[in-house]
This record gives sequence, structure tokens and C-alpha cells, in this order.
Amino acid sequence: MQGGFFRVVGRARVLELAAGFAPVAGAERVGLEECVGRVAAEDVRGPEALPLAARSSMDGFAVRAADTFGAAEAEPQYLECAGAVGVSGFPAFSLTPGRCARIPTGGCLPAGADAVVMVEHTGELVRGIAGTGGPAGTIEVRRAVAPGENVMERGEDLAEGALAVPAGRRLRVADAGLLAALGRESVLAAARPRVAVLSTGDELTPRGAPPEPGRVRDVNSLTVALLARRAGAEPVSFGIVRDDREALAETLDAAWRECDAVLLSGGSSVGARDLAVRALEGFADAEILVHGVSMSPGKPAILARRGDRPVLGLPGQVGAALVVMRVLGVPLLRHLGGEAGALEHGARPELRAVLARNAAARQGREEFVRVRLEARPGGLPLAHPLPGPSGLLRTLVAADGLAVIPAGDEGAYAGQEVDVLLL
Amino acid sequence: MQGGFFRVVGRARVLELAAGFAPVAGAERVGLEECVGRVAAEDVRGPEALPLAARSSMDGFAVRAADTFGAAEAEPQYLECAGAVGVSGFPAFSLTPGRCARIPTGGCLPAGADAVVMVEHTGELVRGIAGTGGPAGTIEVRRAVAPGENVMERGEDLAEGALAVPAGRRLRVADAGLLAALGRESVLAAARPRVAVLSTGDELTPRGAPPEPGRVRDVNSLTVALLARRAGAEPVSFGIVRDDREALAETLDAAWRECDAVLLSGGSSVGARDLAVRALEGFADAEILVHGVSMSPGKPAILARRGDRPVLGLPGQVGAALVVMRVLGVPLLRHLGGEAGALEHGARPELRAVLARNAAARQGREEFVRVRLEARPGGLPLAHPLPGPSGLLRTLVAADGLAVIPAGDEGAYAGQEVDVLLL
Repeated sequence: MQGGFFRVVGRARVLELAAGFAPVAGAERVGLEECVGRVAAEDVRGPEALPLAARSSMDGFAVRAADTFGAAEAEPQYLECAGAVGVSGFPAFSLTPGRCARIPTGGCLPAGADAVVMVEHTGELVRGIAGTGGPAGTIEVRRAVAPGENVMERGEDLAEGALAVPAGRRLRVADAGLLAALGRESVLAAARPRVAVLSTGDELTPRGAPPEPGRVRDVNSLTVALLARRAGAEPVSFGIVRDDREALAETLDAAWRECDAVLLSGGSSVGARDLAVRALEGFADAEILVHGVSMSPGKPAILARRGDRPVLGLPGQVGAALVVMRVLGVPLLRHLGGEAGALEHGARPELRAVLARNAAARQGREEFVRVRLEARPGGLPLAHPLPGPSGLLRTLVAADGLAVIPAGDEGAYAGQEVDVLLL
Repeated sequence: MQGGFFRVVGRARVLELAAGFAPVAGAERVGLEECVGRVAAEDVRGPEALPLAARSSMDGFAVRAADTFGAAEAEPQYLECAGAVGVSGFPAFSLTPGRCARIPTGGCLPAGADAVVMVEHTGELVRGIAGTGGPAGTIEVRRAVAPGENVMERGEDLAEGALAVPAGRRLRVADAGLLAALGRESVLAAARPRVAVLSTGDELTPRGAPPEPGRVRDVNSLTVALLARRAGAEPVSFGIVRDDREALAETLDAAWRECDAVLLSGGSSVGARDLAVRALEGFADAEILVHGVSMSPGKPAILARRGDRPVLGLPGQVGAALVVMRVLGVPLLRHLGGEAGALEHGARPELRAVLARNAAARQGREEFVRVRLEARPGGLPLAHPLPGPSGLLRTLVAADGLAVIPAGDEGAYAGQEVDVLLL
């Protein structure tokens, strides 16, 4: 390759270098309605036990387990029904030996009770005002229960003071649910990294421009921004920059001053690629960490540092830029957003599949082959490689994921198992 | 089970019945910045070929392929350089036999050229003003190229008039990219279904309420709404309804009048469950389609129809409600949102894993076991079942997915392959 000293490294090394950038500072309080996808910036501990009191997990009768010992179909035990517990409120009475209480799923166990016999294993010898939930007379218990049986103990879901959600966790719906159950209405969330998005290339016209041969609509500023947003960042558009070292340096500088990271796409030709590197090298406090990644597509990717902030150079070709964003950019941004383990999770294979036919790879590069997945009951899904050059957008649209062919292999064969990164 | 005639069916039957509901009517135009996750409501066809002109996919020399036939390291061919193509604009000159033109990646092929020789396979006998991209003199070509080699042909990504994005497709970033490449700035998107979310239960207090034994914070109205939103719907809160048939009927009626679907959670005890069914049965135009699903957790789920709109009854227990939303609710809402195949995709297993230890199942029910996934290089991930009753929220927070143990099995064994639905 001509022009510039290439520091070509593998994907793993890029992610290792990405770990050298500190997550962005700052946090903001967000309501639980808006917290999904955000990263917790605080350790949330249960201010109280969850549940607050032992509750029945079945419809039946609350009992002292010892009173049921030995009970069986052929040898039932008989307990006096002391009352009925409602689904709401804490029972005012307590259970003395030999007595039980009607209880619905979710009802609080009265003091003295330590287990619940399912209604299916009981019978009512003398019907009380059962239909209204009132007390019945004598209850026949046809199965013994152990202490704690059919009971959700106080603090069983979360002990008082236990860690519910750790800082650094990307919140999902279940986390929001746990926070709500603990009485929280908001959570401290890590600030979203502000990410500058800029496209370079003399051939680029704005997205809405009329078609013209020899001009290409700037698609990357949209797709890169959309992927950045999905990775939890806040994209800031810096538009299209001409292939001019000074103009590029000026925009890079403005982007760097305003944002926590810079995503630069473009420069598919060698000369244009060099321009970005030279513009970066012009900053005294900048360092090119990676110049070329042994992946395909995505070889022209660049990782640089200026001060403490990263600049990720993506290929200009739309398809390649999307793949590099998925494989390197998204984990980097999630890491900057404070997500613990983002550089491991973000790039980890999400599923395995069996190749439906041979897939070629360029020697010495990790190859990301677009595949359509076909579910197969009882087996791994089939991954159908989509033919055509990596410049095609249509195959990215049709693909469910990227099959990973490790560097060093010349390709993978039909029937071979491969890792697939979902798109 | 006491109280009411249970129409217990399997998950597949519920999804089959869900297909009987028509997607909601209406569409709106959304900008490409906002289109990801929306469902296309129009077939988008390429208004023009993509790319509009044949472009080079390499840095090198545009040639007439026939002029390179027979070229080899030991037997190079010599071509006269007629000029240089820029990365932008359409070359004004055309290529006559015996001539070539310097071309960068992305440059348009001049008329007459039909292939590109990579720069690595050429040499410049007489250096012109090569550094500035100007014409060089004679070019040595050391490898033959076939017509079309290293060229992205006009229309290769999308032929003029070809279908780019079909109606019914849930749009991803790559779709947004393809639409942008075609010059689109917006797309017609299917209207989001408006979904009423209501919780029932005398034990429920609003989310932010102080803790009280025998009272439970209403978590479902949050988690169900968040999952509905993630499924592309617009949740509308109808709050908490007491366990009172008339109050419930009134709120159900208001919800049904205002929304395209109703998600009702609550009624963990048999009596409360019956209440919802009886309230629904009170409407002359309502029909209970499913009363009980043979899944665990989730047995108490209800699917009803009133007029042409669905009512999905979820279990009251938060963990169970979340699982039923994931397994049944999300596919239903995506289907109502116009997504083609949502009832198949939505519920389809996303990956396979190997159980790290035995997982018990209730006979006759499809069991959804919470599992933490451990990636293993070169093999299927390990699925570690998380111990504890299904009422726990903590295990849902810790889980990566739900392992599906088919109905009929008594469980699955360590080492057995299972399908996993990601959470």
C-alpha cells in the first residue's frame, strides 16, 4: 500500500486500545419511563426488603408447616380456619397451632404461619362463607408442606440494602421494573457521549440532492449517526468536508472541541485516506493509534487519540462504514457511555450458525460476511452468505447478520459453524 | 382449577389467533432520522439506478478489458494514459483502444472503459505529473482483467424501479441508508398502534408510594408500557383499577374506545382472574378466545376480542407479566403495527445454547427458564438456569434470555441444547 506508514492491527487490538479512553464524565437523573437503554451511574441498593413481608405464591391456606407433617391423601390432617387474608393489607390476626387461614396468591402470611398448602390439596369439611372469602370451618389438609413452601419470603427477591442495579449497567425493562418495585421513580444515568459525525469526500452531495453521475449522496452521516444513537450516544452533525487538508483539520478541530468523540467517514481512495491521517498528524496532541484494521470490509479504518478523546476513521463506502461501526464503533461508544464490559459484550458473537455454502475470505483479514439466517427447528440456524461486493447496500438490507470468518482462514466451508454478529 | 371455563391452549395457537386481528390503519411520513424501528407502509422503489454510473471499486487504471488480454508479469501490456478521472464528476473524455485513465476508488469509468486494473498491477514507464493526479505517460499493465472487474456496474446495487424496501418491513439502519442513497428524505410509516395499559388489583399502590406490608407497588404499568413501546406501539396509561367488576368493565370500555388494543395485567389470584373474564364477558361484542396458556410462567394469560380489537390479559405477577409480554404481547403488537411476519419472527428462537445444568419443567406446559448466557469460543454458549421462583425480579434482571423447554418434556438436562429467547 502506498502513502503513509500503516499500523495495521486486528480487531481485538483496536478494542484493547479503545479501553484506554475513559468514559465521559457527568450524569443526569432520568425517570424510569426513559431509563431503558441508559447506563446506570449509581449503585442502586434496596432501601427496603423486597417483598416487604412473606407472601403466598399460591391460592390456598396459610399454615404452620409443623401442623401438616404426616398429612397425605390417605391420612389427612385437620386444621381450624382462623380467618381469611385479603390480597391487600397485612392480616391483623396471628396463627396459633392447629389453625390455618385462607390466603390468595400474593396475600401476606399472618404471623405464626410459615407455609401455604395449595387449595388443590385441601378440602372444606364445613363450608363457611367461602364464596366471599370469609372463614370456613374445618379444613382437611391432604399434603404436608415444608416451612417456606409456596411462600415468597421477606427479602427473597432483594434483601434490605442489597445491590439491585450496579453502576455501569445498561438498563433493560426488567431493571426498570426492579427499580419501580423498590419505590424508585428515577435513576442517575451516565451522560450520553456527544459524538461528532462528519463525512469527507469531494464526490459527496447532501442527502436530498438530485442524482448526478459522478456525485454520491452522503449516506454515512445518516447511518453513522443512527448507529451512534443506538449505541447510546448523542450524534452531532458536522456535515460534509471537502478533500482538503486544511478544511478537514479545521472541522476536525471544531468537532473535537465540542464533542467527546469524533466519527469521521470517507476517504475511500488512498489519497483521501491519507488526508485524514495527515490532518490528524497536524495536531501536536494527536496520535495515530491504528492505521488500518485487518478486517474486511473495513481495512481503511483509523483509530487516533487527540488529548483524551478518540477519533475513529471509518471507510467512506457506506456498507464498509456500517460494518466498522457495528464491529468497532458501537463498542467504543458504549464504553465511552460508561457501560461496564462494553468492549467485550459489544463485539461478542451473539449466535452461532451453520454456513449454507462456502464463503471466501481475504487472507490475513477477519472477514465479515453478510448472511441471511434461516431458523431450523432443533438445530443451529442456516447462514446463507449474500453474494456481491461489500459496496452493495442491498445485501446489508437483506442480511440478518455478519458471519465472522477468522483471519488466517482462507474462507469457511458449507456446513461449518460460524459466529454471527446480528445487524 | 376452580372458577370459570378455561380455554387453555399452547403458545402457537395464541399466535395463530393473534393473526386474526388486522393491523391498525393509517400511516404517517417520517424523516429518515426517525425511521429506524418504524414499519414501512409503502413499497419504496428506486427512482433511479444505484449507482447511477459504473464506478471503480479500486485505485488503479480504467481500461478496455480487451486491451489487457494476455497481460502477465512476464508479458506486460502497454497502454497510453489518456487522463485522470477525479473521485467527483463524470469524465468528459472517452477511452479509445490502447488507452487507459488513472482512476481512484469511487471514480466514474469514462465511456469506453469496462474494467479497472488495480494500481498494484501497473507501473508507470514515463512519470507524468502523477503526484497531482495528472496524466502519466505510458502505463505497464502486468495483469489481465475481465470486463466488469473491479467495477461496480450501473444499477448493480439497485436497478432502476426495483423494490428497495417493501411495505411491512421494520426499518433498520441499513434500510435508512438505502433510502438515503436513493435520495429519499422520508418514508411512509405505518401508524403506531395505541395500546391501553392497565393494572388491576386491590393490593396495588402507585409506583412512588411509600412501602407498606400487604401493598404492592404497581410495576406492571411501567414494564408493560416499556415493552409495548419497544414493540413499536404507543402505550396509553389507564392506571390502576380495583378488583371490582363494574369499575373494571368501565375502564376496559374506555380503554377499548380510545385504543387499538388493551393490555390488562393483574389478577394473580383465581378470583381476580375471573373478574377480568367476567368483565369482558359483560360486553355483548366481546369473545374470550383463550383463557389460560400452557406456558410457565404465564398460565393465567387471556386473549379476548372485542369487536375487531384484541384484549390481552397478562398475569399480575411482575416476572410472569414480563415473560408473557415478551413471548406473546410483543409479537401481537408488532403484528398490529403492520410488520409482516411479526407473529413468526417475534416469537422465534434467537439462538441456541447448551444447558449448564438440569432445568425442571411443569408437565404439559412450555417452560421459559431464565438463563444467563456464557459465551464459549468455538461452541454454543452455555445457558445457566437462574434458581428461584418465577416471582423474582432479580433473576429477570440477571437473565440474558429465556430458555424454552418444550411442553411435554419434564425438563431438560445439563448438556442438552435449548432455544433461547433473548430478553
